[in-house]
Amino acid sequence: MSNREMISVDEARALVLDQSRPLAQVETPLAAALDGILAVDARSDVDSPPHDKSVVDGYALRAADLSDGRGELAILEEVTAGQMPTHSVTVNACTRIMTGAPIPAGADAVVMIERTELLADDRVRIDDPRCVAGQNIMPQASSLRQGEVVVHRGTRLRPIDIGLLAETGHAHVRVFDRPRVAMLATGNELVAIDQQPGPGKIRNSNSHLLASLLAQAQARPAPLGIARDDRSALREAIERGLDCDALLLSGGVSAGVLDLVPAVLAELGVQAVFHKVRVKPGKPLWFGVHERAAHRCLVFGLPGNPLSGLVNFELFVRPALRTMQGETDVTPAYERARLGQEFRQRGTRQTYYPATLRRQAMSSTITPVEWRGSADLRGFAAANALAMFPAGERRFDEGEEIDVLPLQDVRG
Amino acid sequence: MSNREMISVDEARALVLDQSRPLAQVETPLAAALDGILAVDARSDVDSPPHDKSVVDGYALRAADLSDGRGELAILEEVTAGQMPTHSVTVNACTRIMTGAPIPAGADAVVMIERTELLADDRVRIDDPRCVAGQNIMPQASSLRQGEVVVHRGTRLRPIDIGLLAETGHAHVRVFDRPRVAMLATGNELVAIDQQPGPGKIRNSNSHLLASLLAQAQARPAPLGIARDDRSALREAIERGLDCDALLLSGGVSAGVLDLVPAVLAELGVQAVFHKVRVKPGKPLWFGVHERAAHRCLVFGLPGNPLSGLVNFELFVRPALRTMQGETDVTPAYERARLGQEFRQRGTRQTYYPATLRRQAMSSTITPVEWRGSADLRGFAAANALAMFPAGERRFDEGEEIDVLPLQDVRG
Repeated sequence: MSNREMISVDEARALVLDQSRPLAQVETPLAAALDGILAVDARSDVDSPPHDKSVVDGYALRAADLSDGRGELAILEEVTAGQMPTHSVTVNACTRIMTGAPIPAGADAVVMIERTELLADDRVRIDDPRCVAGQNIMPQASSLRQGEVVVHRGTRLRPIDIGLLAETGHAHVRVFDRPRVAMLATGNELVAIDQQPGPGKIRNSNSHLLASLLAQAQARPAPLGIARDDRSALREAIERGLDCDALLLSGGVSAGVLDLVPAVLAELGVQAVFHKVRVKPGKPLWFGVHERAAHRCLVFGLPGNPLSGLVNFELFVRPALRTMQGETDVTPAYERARLGQEFRQRGTRQTYYPATLRRQAMSSTITPVEWRGSADLRGFAAANALAMFPAGERRFDEGEEIDVLPLQDVRG
Repeated sequence: MSNREMISVDEARALVLDQSRPLAQVETPLAAALDGILAVDARSDVDSPPHDKSVVDGYALRAADLSDGRGELAILEEVTAGQMPTHSVTVNACTRIMTGAPIPAGADAVVMIERTELLADDRVRIDDPRCVAGQNIMPQASSLRQGEVVVHRGTRLRPIDIGLLAETGHAHVRVFDRPRVAMLATGNELVAIDQQPGPGKIRNSNSHLLASLLAQAQARPAPLGIARDDRSALREAIERGLDCDALLLSGGVSAGVLDLVPAVLAELGVQAVFHKVRVKPGKPLWFGVHERAAHRCLVFGLPGNPLSGLVNFELFVRPALRTMQGETDVTPAYERARLGQEFRQRGTRQTYYPATLRRQAMSSTITPVEWRGSADLRGFAAANALAMFPAGERRFDEGEEIDVLPLQDVRG
């Protein structure tokens, strides 16, 4: 197949997303909902704050009782957070108040305790030249109003969202289920990672790399091990994988003699959607769908070279997983940055090259790393982003602005 | 205490880090090591690739046998990945080869199958005008050499690192243990989140917000619930918390009448290190250490206002947790960005204000959000970063460059 017959990255992604569906919604305890996608708008059942409240420790008083911020007032009572006042604040009186406590009727300002001096006989001296009405008071409902939507459907829940949901009584939330994704490595050259590779063999790094990418993407990896280049073993393993929401096969889709995978998939009723994309690395990507009553499995045939698989994952698999979890805008988030050194694009395919992205106020720079190609994990490890170079032979100059796909930040 | 007597953010962080120690190292299966910190340099026990290998499907041949990239050669055998060649490649001969397979002796280039045509009698026609010696061959050890360090101690493991460790046989890795962190909320105004708050009450959002921040920081939250403003209940709960690597108390450290927490901590032998930091929000932060034979617990007394707690978490708690997990450079990673609108700094404390950060090639911009202060979770939810304004009353102009602390990216 010539490059002209291959589909583009955008076309391939559109075909994948066309086949992707949101999963079922599940009720989950709030403690387990971080990074999940909210399936239903969450409303507040309270005003926040529930009453005018003090934001400092000090005295609630009437600003008009002070002259240039000074005065001496009688203390009526103390109100702590959780208590309700029992007195209204009258002329030349005040209430000792703690952070979070309700403002008594009659008071219109709170003076911080640092600006007061306790006197004998339950009296206090105030000295707060800047005191104005409304000071240090957070009005009722100024943060949230009862009935308002506090977190919208489609939000991927961050700690702040968890805090909001807790404040408004959502001890359980409906989120979209997290995809179960099977991984099967194929190839007679592979051994398990706890084995010593003999002549001609290498360890199965793909399954572990993909499992990590899946965990990072909030999916649940279901490893199926290594299938040998043997039709019946392959068929049996793939059948198990089709029970999941997606199946990632690594190896088995290049042009070689032993590429049994597409034929076995067809046998099992997996409908082919496309094979080969005009992208580098990752050209041999195969994609299809298996449907039966009430269950759908997206099947991705990834190349054997681990970084080809990684780039395909970022461009095509991750958006599919995000769609399954209920996100609607799933196009990868490109940034713009200026090349830190020139790059010679030779190819006829859109190219993703590992690079280091440095963000600064005035100019983010992107610098390709030393890399020996799609089997070179070690070279790739110096990168934190993929620099995207459109197809077409030309030189990109140092300082030229290009699109960049940051890799998922490390969480810690 | 006046602002002059309070310590600065940098001083406070230095005191916290001075008390922070790496936790024990644990052997963990690779599948569970993502986001952990590697405790020991990991070396490769193999060359990668283990032999000169083909990076494409095609024919391994001698470049000198081609004339302007053309020729007709005899096919000696097929070698797939995992097999060893049994023939050397001699003059005008070649070997059919698959991606990943070892290069036969005598061959010095591989031509992609797309540039060939199979003929009768085990012969093949080559047409590859650009063919040069070394083409499509990844030399032995060009990615990794046996004995080299592949992932360094102190690395927080990303998917690419997991792939490298898998490739080099590290089915188990030594990582630093993840901190167990207890959380205790204090205050008579709090109810559990599944309760309806009565007059003057609010729900305990702090514990859930903090639990999420802890999970995000790779710590293991151990919630202790709500302790009432009652000395003996407080003491009992705190004692349980001191068994963890850190204890976060929310509420109980402001200037109010019922702030029992510092006294109870002293009773239990927690050594106070500091109280109050010249920062906004988050001034009332209390910090101390509890040590006994072979166990150390860092105790943070966070203010009751949830966003005061969040800012203190980002500035002080997260770096402590990173140190416990074996990281050495734990200062929060500030970025520079230009203000999207002016900001009037009125205070005498270094100020952290929620804002939205937009990254672009030529100018990252940071725009403060509408926010009603440290109890306003909803206003804060629009932010993805904290804009940092040094102390000192002045106006920061639109377009002025400032420091920004991005909040942890959402993972998905």
